[in-house]
Amino acid sequence: MAITKGPQVFPRSEYLRRIASVKSEMAERELHTLVVSFDRSMNYLTGYSAPTVDVPQALVIAADKEEPTLILRLMDAPGAHYLSFLERENVLGYPESLINNPDEDGYDFIIDFIQQSGAAKRGLGLEIGNLPPISAGKFRARLPDATIADFTGAITRIRMVKSDLEIALMKEAAAITDAAMLRASEVIRPGVREADAVAEIVATLVRGADGKPGTKIANYHMTTSPRTGVVHFEWWTEDSFRYGSQVNLEIAGVRHSYTAPMSRTFSIGNPSERLRRLHEAQLAGHEAALKMIRPGRTCSEVAQAARRAIEKHGVQSKGRLGSPVGIDWAEAGAKFVEGDTMVLKPNMTWYLNLANCPDEDFGMKVGQCVRVTETGVEVLTKAPLKLFEI
Amino acid sequence: MAITKGPQVFPRSEYLRRIASVKSEMAERELHTLVVSFDRSMNYLTGYSAPTVDVPQALVIAADKEEPTLILRLMDAPGAHYLSFLERENVLGYPESLINNPDEDGYDFIIDFIQQSGAAKRGLGLEIGNLPPISAGKFRARLPDATIADFTGAITRIRMVKSDLEIALMKEAAAITDAAMLRASEVIRPGVREADAVAEIVATLVRGADGKPGTKIANYHMTTSPRTGVVHFEWWTEDSFRYGSQVNLEIAGVRHSYTAPMSRTFSIGNPSERLRRLHEAQLAGHEAALKMIRPGRTCSEVAQAARRAIEKHGVQSKGRLGSPVGIDWAEAGAKFVEGDTMVLKPNMTWYLNLANCPDEDFGMKVGQCVRVTETGVEVLTKAPLKLFEI
Repeated sequence: MAITKGPQVFPRSEYLRRIASVKSEMAERELHTLVVSFDRSMNYLTGYSAPTVDVPQALVIAADKEEPTLILRLMDAPGAHYLSFLERENVLGYPESLINNPDEDGYDFIIDFIQQSGAAKRGLGLEIGNLPPISAGKFRARLPDATIADFTGAITRIRMVKSDLEIALMKEAAAITDAAMLRASEVIRPGVREADAVAEIVATLVRGADGKPGTKIANYHMTTSPRTGVVHFEWWTEDSFRYGSQVNLEIAGVRHSYTAPMSRTFSIGNPSERLRRLHEAQLAGHEAALKMIRPGRTCSEVAQAARRAIEKHGVQSKGRLGSPVGIDWAEAGAKFVEGDTMVLKPNMTWYLNLANCPDEDFGMKVGQCVRVTETGVEVLTKAPLKLFEI
Repeated sequence: MAITKGPQVFPRSEYLRRIASVKSEMAERELHTLVVSFDRSMNYLTGYSAPTVDVPQALVIAADKEEPTLILRLMDAPGAHYLSFLERENVLGYPESLINNPDEDGYDFIIDFIQQSGAAKRGLGLEIGNLPPISAGKFRARLPDATIADFTGAITRIRMVKSDLEIALMKEAAAITDAAMLRASEVIRPGVREADAVAEIVATLVRGADGKPGTKIANYHMTTSPRTGVVHFEWWTEDSFRYGSQVNLEIAGVRHSYTAPMSRTFSIGNPSERLRRLHEAQLAGHEAALKMIRPGRTCSEVAQAARRAIEKHGVQSKGRLGSPVGIDWAEAGAKFVEGDTMVLKPNMTWYLNLANCPDEDFGMKVGQCVRVTETGVEVLTKAPLKLFEI
């Protein structure tokens, strides 16, 4: 039987509003057709949150058609019927014989579709940065009369400003993050295996909060002495927590793709003087950044304020201090770093994350998920902003 | 302070043996230098299991040097010192100023390194399929006198045959998978929220088995009626399990990157006649495949045996029936599909997975992790091969 449409995360009007923003950008660039390849943007524009990696798939937007067309491998079409807001005829599955086929692949199907829709000689937007090189070349070769423009990153910029419906999901995600960080503060104890603590923390992220379950396990990072200067470890150890150790924990609750990250530092036993001073400096930077964030300020001003406050404490501050968040742990398009001239707008959401690793074997993180309001900033993650002493 | 080297997953001799296999392939192709870009192959050759996505990084192997050189962003160097078997001087961190820099990036650093090592005019292997197109072009432009050959996929093929040390980790991973599937059979109950069951299952995957924790959360798929015909959902629902529903579960324990997947189907209440008949057919296919797997047989013969046994039950069988596994849920390079002429060898490990979705809203999976032995096959995952009735 045909699969039924599942419960929808957003009303149809919300998706049409988002698509209208994209069409307006297409009109400015005189594009008739846009091929969206970036999975997070496909998710944003349709609600289809389960894209397969490493196979051709695209959302094709035509300027003169209300709904776009989602094209994916046949095996994935039922999932798209179920999750997306699209009418049934606007989800097309290409034959599985095009998978792992050296002669022809899903992009040929997508190009056939564009030819058949009569758009082969018009303006065509591609997200070149999200396409395999060979495949971008195929669009050029098979659509020689199209005027091709690179649309990479444009939808990511549109995604940066959230609707109130998106903010509501970000808050639900943040509540899950809070619950898991609280659980962490209960289970990080000397003698407990790191894996057993992670099991409890991740289980809390899945169970969710306020009756709303998590809908995905996002990236997570837990590092314990002597690994606290390592930034990108998930967790990697067969150890148990020890008295005198430091633990850096970075986690994120997720509600229907919306991700709310947070990081905190734990000291098992009294913190060292070195850790206490560094943490104080980073908190001062955090406070300065929060004071600076409001509509009209630039990313650069926020980063500069944080760095100055940190350096007043005699601590060197380097690198970036946060990224936009939403349908991703870190959305591209801007960052809190000196020199980034992006201007803050209401309902942008950011992961303000002050990581500092002064040494190969020593570093810490303190970060939270924030929203730019009409007049300032709202912190979405509510766990205490402190060095947790166990 | 400099970070200490962490506990090593494999002895140095094991990594040198793997690197020798790659060097032998390089010699056949008359390559002096090889740039390994595929993160799983870097992991295989060095033990560095925490690569960052979307930033330049490479393992550079020189034919005349015992250890290769791992080049990554400065921020990730401490993690590589800690995890990899490499001597300290063979891990190079490039400046963070090359990240998000439109003029120069980590590949320039890697190319500088090759030039400085005197290999700019010799045979150079690249994994073109794992490089951004622009970056592959940069190697060609900046090393015009090198004879460049495409090495994509070659290390993946070497990885397919495991050492006994790798098999031991696969077995530890399989024991974790078994524990989590057993836990699933306890917590999938009518009235239980799907998220609460997933929390228990994932927590078991993390806690591990036999005192050995899981070291990563691999992909997982749980679909419940009416979504059992959807293949690639993680889990997506706020529902509770209902009497009369079917649940497809696919999970994998992981030990130090080695992944042992398994899938099973659950029926809450008596299974429908349709499900019972499909499951019997798939089990017959499974049995026929197991009888066929031994050194010397081809992937195609295994797939054909399974398809024939399934079709004897009056059920249509389509698509592929499994992939190699190891440092990945599904290693590329071969698959159990008719026409694949890859010959099975001892100590290859496979995910023999018989998924069948006859309808958009109805399908099932039964799969396990197996090893090709000297004379036949060993099933690594031990959970009962049956339709679980709750």
